Amino acid sequence: MAPQLDSYFKQVDGLSDNFIDRLRKAVAIPSISADDERRPDVVKMGKFLASELRALGAHVEERPLGKQPHKEHLELPPVIVARYGNDKNKRTILVYGHYDVQPANKEDGWATEPFELSIDDKGRMFGRGSTDDKGPVLGWINCIEAHLKAGVDFPVNLLMCFEGMEEYGSEGLDDFITAEAKGFFKDADAVCISDNYWLGTEKPCLTYGLRGCNYYSIAISGPGQDLHSGVFGGSAQEPMTDIVRVMGSLVDTDGNIQIPGLKDLVAPVTEEEKSLYGDISYTMDNLYESLGSKTSIFEDKERTLMARWRFPSLSLHGIEGAFSAAGAKTVIPAKVVGKFSIRTVPNMQIDEVNELVYKHVKAEFAKLKSKNTLDVSLQHAGMWWVASPKHWNFSAAGKAVEKVWGVKPDLTREGGSIPVTLTFEQATGKNVLLLPMGSSTDAAHSINEKLDKRNYIEGIKLQGAYLHYVAEEPLS
Amino acid sequence: MAPQLDSYFKQVDGLSDNFIDRLRKAVAIPSISADDERRPDVVKMGKFLASELRALGAHVEERPLGKQPHKEHLELPPVIVARYGNDKNKRTILVYGHYDVQPANKEDGWATEPFELSIDDKGRMFGRGSTDDKGPVLGWINCIEAHLKAGVDFPVNLLMCFEGMEEYGSEGLDDFITAEAKGFFKDADAVCISDNYWLGTEKPCLTYGLRGCNYYSIAISGPGQDLHSGVFGGSAQEPMTDIVRVMGSLVDTDGNIQIPGLKDLVAPVTEEEKSLYGDISYTMDNLYESLGSKTSIFEDKERTLMARWRFPSLSLHGIEGAFSAAGAKTVIPAKVVGKFSIRTVPNMQIDEVNELVYKHVKAEFAKLKSKNTLDVSLQHAGMWWVASPKHWNFSAAGKAVEKVWGVKPDLTREGGSIPVTLTFEQATGKNVLLLPMGSSTDAAHSINEKLDKRNYIEGIKLQGAYLHYVAEEPLS
Ligand SMILES: [Zn+2]
Ligand SMILES: [Zn+2]
Ligand SMILES: [Zn+2]
Ligand SMILES: [Zn+2]
Repeated sequence: MAPQLDSYFKQVDGLSDNFIDRLRKAVAIPSISADDERRPDVVKMGKFLASELRALGAHVEERPLGKQPHKEHLELPPVIVARYGNDKNKRTILVYGHYDVQPANKEDGWATEPFELSIDDKGRMFGRGSTDDKGPVLGWINCIEAHLKAGVDFPVNLLMCFEGMEEYGSEGLDDFITAEAKGFFKDADAVCISDNYWLGTEKPCLTYGLRGCNYYSIAISGPGQDLHSGVFGGSAQEPMTDIVRVMGSLVDTDGNIQIPGLKDLVAPVTEEEKSLYGDISYTMDNLYESLGSKTSIFEDKERTLMARWRFPSLSLHGIEGAFSAAGAKTVIPAKVVGKFSIRTVPNMQIDEVNELVYKHVKAEFAKLKSKNTLDVSLQHAGMWWVASPKHWNFSAAGKAVEKVWGVKPDLTREGGSIPVTLTFEQATGKNVLLLPMGSSTDAAHSINEKLDKRNYIEGIKLQGAYLHYVAEEPLS
Repeated sequence: MAPQLDSYFKQVDGLSDNFIDRLRKAVAIPSISADDERRPDVVKMGKFLASELRALGAHVEERPLGKQPHKEHLELPPVIVARYGNDKNKRTILVYGHYDVQPANKEDGWATEPFELSIDDKGRMFGRGSTDDKGPVLGWINCIEAHLKAGVDFPVNLLMCFEGMEEYGSEGLDDFITAEAKGFFKDADAVCISDNYWLGTEKPCLTYGLRGCNYYSIAISGPGQDLHSGVFGGSAQEPMTDIVRVMGSLVDTDGNIQIPGLKDLVAPVTEEEKSLYGDISYTMDNLYESLGSKTSIFEDKERTLMARWRFPSLSLHGIEGAFSAAGAKTVIPAKVVGKFSIRTVPNMQIDEVNELVYKHVKAEFAKLKSKNTLDVSLQHAGMWWVASPKHWNFSAAGKAVEKVWGVKPDLTREGGSIPVTLTFEQATGKNVLLLPMGSSTDAAHSINEKLDKRNYIEGIKLQGAYLHYVAEEPLS
């Protein structure tokens, strides 16, 4: 039986000014986790969420994470965990979001004050954190309020986990989640994370996969200190000469990774999978617009999306220790560290990839017959994640999208990683769904970040509808 | 007839404490030209030289150079020009030096206060500017004083040109020299520059050649802004991928420049020239010590010195616009600018080299079949310089070295450039000699810069003796 959502939806529309006001208050708190001096504002933002939730009758705990690693004078902001409802006959859904934001300064080029919510005549609500991730986090709170005011029974028990350090590496969160999987989160039947974006601007999506990332350093050193190229050029072997050659051996202009054996680790594309890409609402013009150029590798959407979602890629990020400023400096750098990363996909295992990378880099360096010294190492690694989109968690979300937006959602994967996703899956053993609220044009992490009023209000409806459909899904 | 130098030499020995005191006063003035806030100290240092010279009876002018380009609120320090003697029957020698210094902070690792002259038990006089270039500049002043006090007739008319912006690109100096070549400097019969170093620590040298330098940028751009490698890796062509491949095509680990046609521009080595290198006082251990490693290209001194002095070299300096900090950042840089330079030697002309570089870089980029955009350009160029070491200016200096040090000097070239050398040669049309005072271990531009007491005092004798021998050289 389809859930009755009309009075809930009507209530959301009726409260929309209140909900926008709640977002305005949240955006006004500059909770920048990367800025030590803003730490009190991050804490203030956490307390704001806690007090809003308590006012609606939720049980809330502000859980400390201790001192910040490498910055022992700073206390990490608390994780705000909350429970709304405790009915053994209902399913329990754990939702995650973050209340910290990226840095923002008007001088970076913002058209409006970044910490004042500014709504234009197209309904675009500009402000740092509007879409990443305050809008989606407040969505769950708004959802509770609308149910209360509409007098509609809340369909599930809701567990909430809102952190304040996501934009700074989620310091301390992994251990917390792992510990609470058997504690505060132990009743969770499934997880829903609202911290990503639609593929385009018109069609909602559900996200069931993310690529992993192995990040490497190649250090090449020779002389005891930087040298003057006039004095030593021609008589010393130069680490820069070696490193560009080694880095040049990793990938070609068309993105083909040159590391022998790496392709063999990638799961083959099935016919069923291939057929999924054609229907996805995405065009090459979408890509060109987000690139700001036509310098794509492929000319068709299918191969572009597959390259982004289900094939590995290798990017060279830069060289540490060399001259990197504007102007001209005639230095021979003594030690240079090349940085690159490989985005990984099923079934690439971190260690297998490491082994192939090390072998290839060492072989390429050996070819140079250089007297310099090479050191190649993994800086960090995060695994890829792929969930089953046939799980009831996804079916429920799919039906909710159809109800709210009138279309079946695209099932998408993402090229980047959201490490907390895998942590939740591994710690709880439950299905994890990524349910985005904002669209591809929201400019999270950039100047003029925004959330469209439509995405916010319909997103609140979607979050509520999702919980209702979840309640009705048969046990699998 | 060999000049009578005994009473001059004796006087220099007798005044050595005074001369060290004069150096102490000069080192105490932190005349850092790169530091805007030290500009008054640079001016103070210029005025110190002017007043010392006036006290000895020289005619001195403090010549303004106007505002500093790009820093219009700052007045450039004056060029101190001076004339000592105006006898039509004597030769006139123009000497150049600079009274500004490199930055220095105790915290950078200095063992002593950088702006206090500290003399250790080996006679090493530590202090910023001691060897670069206050010691050599004061040498000429000391030379005048010792002649006066010894009652020895000064053998030449001495023109002096001491600038205060050498460590910051000699702003404004070229135009000044060109203008004064027919003015203040018009009587000069030869030029002597004391602003470089011995090849080693035991044997003096005269320097007759410098390499030039063509400095290039290779800009490769694609996307409209930096991209996230998770989202776009695999679907966009990356400028970093292209630039390491283009940079990797320029030179190999053993310093062989890969640009077709470049070698053909280099003057062939003559048998006579080849024979000069064997005698030069230099060992591979000297090289290893200054490199701080054994990562040399060659295993023998002859090829090492030729590679440094008379063959071109190509060094890769770094990449602007890419990630260059410590740590890990998953950026795809949108525009990267590779920097490299070619040290040039006879008979490489700036334009010929440019043409070959542009052609090669464009051809290598074309091979990549990339959609990105390439721009290669010359950032700046300075010509190589080679003087005739058979000119009377060099013969006189050679005899002076033999008189003071008891050995024939090595005739050397240098790998780096001292642009003012070529400016003087071209503006005056006269022979230019580089007559170093300090040794290879003086650490100019580094922490713990020093000048050995021996090099200072014997250097003053050498400067005076040089002027006496100059006076006796037959007209050529
Ligand atoms: Zn986020
Ligand atoms: Zn974010
Ligand atoms: Zn100097
Ligand atoms: Zn210098």
